[in-house]
Amino acid sequence: MPEEKHIVTAGQLVQLVGKSGKAKILRLSPGAKHQSKDGIIEHDQIIGEKWASQVSSHLGEAFTILQPALDDLIRTVKRNSQTLYPKDIAYILLSLGIGPGDEVVEVGSGSGAMTIALAHCVGSEGRVFSYDRRPEIQSVARENIENLGLNAQVTFKLRDVEEGLDEKNLRFIIVDLPNPEDYLEQFKAAMLPGAFFACILPTSNQVSTLLLAMKKAGFSFFEVSEILHRYYKPVARRLRPADSMVAHTGYLFFARHVRESNLERK
Amino acid sequence: MPEEKHIVTAGQLVQLVGKSGKAKILRLSPGAKHQSKDGIIEHDQIIGEKWASQVSSHLGEAFTILQPALDDLIRTVKRNSQTLYPKDIAYILLSLGIGPGDEVVEVGSGSGAMTIALAHCVGSEGRVFSYDRRPEIQSVARENIENLGLNAQVTFKLRDVEEGLDEKNLRFIIVDLPNPEDYLEQFKAAMLPGAFFACILPTSNQVSTLLLAMKKAGFSFFEVSEILHRYYKPVARRLRPADSMVAHTGYLFFARHVRESNLERK
Amino acid sequence: MPEEKHIVTAGQLVQLVGKSGKAKILRLSPGAKHQSKDGIIEHDQIIGEKWASQVSSHLGEAFTILQPALDDLIRTVKRNSQTLYPKDIAYILLSLGIGPGDEVVEVGSGSGAMTIALAHCVGSEGRVFSYDRRPEIQSVARENIENLGLNAQVTFKLRDVEEGLDEKNLRFIIVDLPNPEDYLEQFKAAMLPGAFFACILPTSNQVSTLLLAMKKAGFSFFEVSEILHRYYKPVARRLRPADSMVAHTGYLFFARHVRESNLERK
Amino acid sequence: MPEEKHIVTAGQLVQLVGKSGKAKILRLSPGAKHQSKDGIIEHDQIIGEKWASQVSSHLGEAFTILQPALDDLIRTVKRNSQTLYPKDIAYILLSLGIGPGDEVVEVGSGSGAMTIALAHCVGSEGRVFSYDRRPEIQSVARENIENLGLNAQVTFKLRDVEEGLDEKNLRFIIVDLPNPEDYLEQFKAAMLPGAFFACILPTSNQVSTLLLAMKKAGFSFFEVSEILHRYYKPVARRLRPADSMVAHTGYLFFARHVRESNLERK
Repeated sequence: MPEEKHIVTAGQLVQLVGKSGKAKILRLSPGAKHQSKDGIIEHDQIIGEKWASQVSSHLGEAFTILQPALDDLIRTVKRNSQTLYPKDIAYILLSLGIGPGDEVVEVGSGSGAMTIALAHCVGSEGRVFSYDRRPEIQSVARENIENLGLNAQVTFKLRDVEEGLDEKNLRFIIVDLPNPEDYLEQFKAAMLPGAFFACILPTSNQVSTLLLAMKKAGFSFFEVSEILHRYYKPVARRLRPADSMVAHTGYLFFARHVRESNLERK
Repeated sequence: MPEEKHIVTAGQLVQLVGKSGKAKILRLSPGAKHQSKDGIIEHDQIIGEKWASQVSSHLGEAFTILQPALDDLIRTVKRNSQTLYPKDIAYILLSLGIGPGDEVVEVGSGSGAMTIALAHCVGSEGRVFSYDRRPEIQSVARENIENLGLNAQVTFKLRDVEEGLDEKNLRFIIVDLPNPEDYLEQFKAAMLPGAFFACILPTSNQVSTLLLAMKKAGFSFFEVSEILHRYYKPVARRLRPADSMVAHTGYLFFARHVRESNLERK
Repeated sequence: MPEEKHIVTAGQLVQLVGKSGKAKILRLSPGAKHQSKDGIIEHDQIIGEKWASQVSSHLGEAFTILQPALDDLIRTVKRNSQTLYPKDIAYILLSLGIGPGDEVVEVGSGSGAMTIALAHCVGSEGRVFSYDRRPEIQSVARENIENLGLNAQVTFKLRDVEEGLDEKNLRFIIVDLPNPEDYLEQFKAAMLPGAFFACILPTSNQVSTLLLAMKKAGFSFFEVSEILHRYYKPVARRLRPADSMVAHTGYLFFARHVRESNLERK
Repeated sequence: MPEEKHIVTAGQLVQLVGKSGKAKILRLSPGAKHQSKDGIIEHDQIIGEKWASQVSSHLGEAFTILQPALDDLIRTVKRNSQTLYPKDIAYILLSLGIGPGDEVVEVGSGSGAMTIALAHCVGSEGRVFSYDRRPEIQSVARENIENLGLNAQVTFKLRDVEEGLDEKNLRFIIVDLPNPEDYLEQFKAAMLPGAFFACILPTSNQVSTLLLAMKKAGFSFFEVSEILHRYYKPVARRLRPADSMVAHTGYLFFARHVRESNLERK
């Protein structure tokens, strides 16, 4: 019954796009209402409609119903701090090769942007363990995960990683902390030999500090890089990059838990 | 039985890293042999060992046994053409939000780099349909997919998309062709309203041409960008970018199958 | 009398830097006053002082007296349009090798940013001819040049280059027009064989159009490039790039007036 | 007599461009010969010819006679070390505002690439003082300067700047040393208050070290940046960046000799 795919159903995430271009993401719940300055839309107006069709607010404003992109979900999270960017999250996911069924530990819940992407990637067979010691930070990440209905894949742990991780034999650990060098023993205790470590660091000094500490601690296969993402104005006859761009988010830092320090990655 | 995770088993992909840093990826098969200029290693030497441990060739050269990263799998495919780069593949996957269980059509099999990443992301519940009209190209992609044991998720179709796609109600279509503007009707016929379109184009002229054609054909939400990936030399006390970098692979082009041309994405 | 160099004299350009970091550039004139929200400073307070010393406004605010950098002069011009950036001006000047005593034609006076840099480079023995057909544009450029005391080196011509240039045997012509391809015959008539042509173009379509037209018109040695300038936050213990940057100003386009179309520059 | 400008004369620098695109720069000397694998050309064949005309070698190969760009002079110097790139030299010259008649000290002669550009910019009324303590390095820079006939503007000093500089009241000092922080007192003794300091540093650690030292030594107005230069393939119908680019040469570091450490540049 391929027709079903066309139809928006209760419980799904939809993105409403109005004339002003503002894209609001909501989870459909029978009886609920969506309020905006362009008027009220009842969720029941949307449920049962076709994707990419339009509904009107009580003020007569038209909104198009779209499936949100993962990119959109990440960009529109409620924020408690500097959030990670899709360009960086994307490369970390691919570089580590995180996929369906994987178990991943994230240290530093942040706003949950990485948590969302991880939960999406590992799917219902996988699991994300997200550590943070700051309750006010983690509660925002938790809220974002709940709003997107990704709870089943994510376990939040309110804890300082100084005390160690519960997991063992991890293949992947992703760290968003200012001082990962202080917890290398805790990370190693939780990692499978050969496991992948990734983190993002804002300053070059942090990169230098972490490189020194990780070499000493028996990590290797270091890769440090940065991703620049340059948008273009999508105008066919006047194609050109946008005027400004994000110049820096952080340095991406990858390593593996392999003690042979004489190994050099090609 | 967490110990199991430590043990390398027959059928798994392993990456052998020797002193020279060369990283060879192979699928373990009892009785098979791996030959290199640093000597022969029997697969049976590896099977049953722990991850990140070492084995020696008959010439006494040590090799470390690692799980290959997805990144490594993509970079080491046998090539029949300019292959896609991890930086671009990563952003396309995230931007579209491809995940476990998804069905994706890829037009232009290329060397199979994107196919591998897609197959990995959609997992055993998902499916990738990869079209190409050139048998000599597709056979290489097929070989790469088979070598990595990803056959179950991938269906290759040797066909000119001029004749249309078999699939309907697709949420995702990814195109690696020099002239996607010639097949927009075929793409639309296979896409769910609101579905995601992504392609990568080497020249600015192609971007302009495609923008014009897609606007006329009722696509919208255009996003054009490029990803620059800059590596650093991972030396703590002399941290600096590498001397040279890839300056260009292609322009990333995203659109959605929504007819309302007056919509503007935020 | 090396001491003289330390002393600020009437007629010089000075940059006043106050607590707020705002840098105002003015030409010292006996009897004149400089007003700002931080109070009034008499030019006579500055004349006779040492460079890098401080003066106080009538409100007691301290200002440091500095020699302005060329960079500062360019950045602080009064603007009538999108102005050229130091990064691009710098590379054009060096690439062409403009120096003391040179004669240069500039087509498109703009805000005078390039005019200022050219006048500075060619010095009192050189000359800049700046064409523009729009009186309201050129009057701003003229005002900027006069404020900096560079009149002697610059001749403004209020004219459409459609009518041709007065100069002959030019070694350098720099164009800031949206449609340079429409005036190639006029440019050629004014250029010495082998002379240098430079322009800056915002869109890729313009680059393609100009390449086609110039090849047909007998130019060669084409070079197209772009300059990206990324600032860092100058903090020793937290060194990192600034958050955002200018992503695009224009494509730099160089060519030479040599008819042999089969020549290829290394 | 405008015709004169068309004519190549003895003593001038010319660039010979042959079919292979190789561009050789030579100074014309009556009676001299230029040898290449494409045959011999007598300088006397070139003297008296028009710019952009062609001469033939004794093997019948045609060469076009062009005025070399400053850019070409810099790129083709004989090298003794990592040489500075035009993109960086250009921005330093503009940022400092070096022009006709200026006196500049350069510390670290290198291959003379910066020396050439400085000598060109300051012209016959100006002067460049170039310090280096390594005779084998400075002799190459000296040779390059002599080959280009720029001797009159340049004074080489074979000396360790540890011993101090001879010049006083300098407005500009440009440093290409790995450890400029070790000579700040020497630099200050030679600089006019408010004078401009520029250097280029390969690693981020050096930038951090120098920032700390200069703040302590009473410098301010720090600016740290990097210039990326991306070339395009100049093909009208297939416009795109080149495949690879220089990813890093060095960090550009600017400061001014002003003691007020509370000043912040806008």
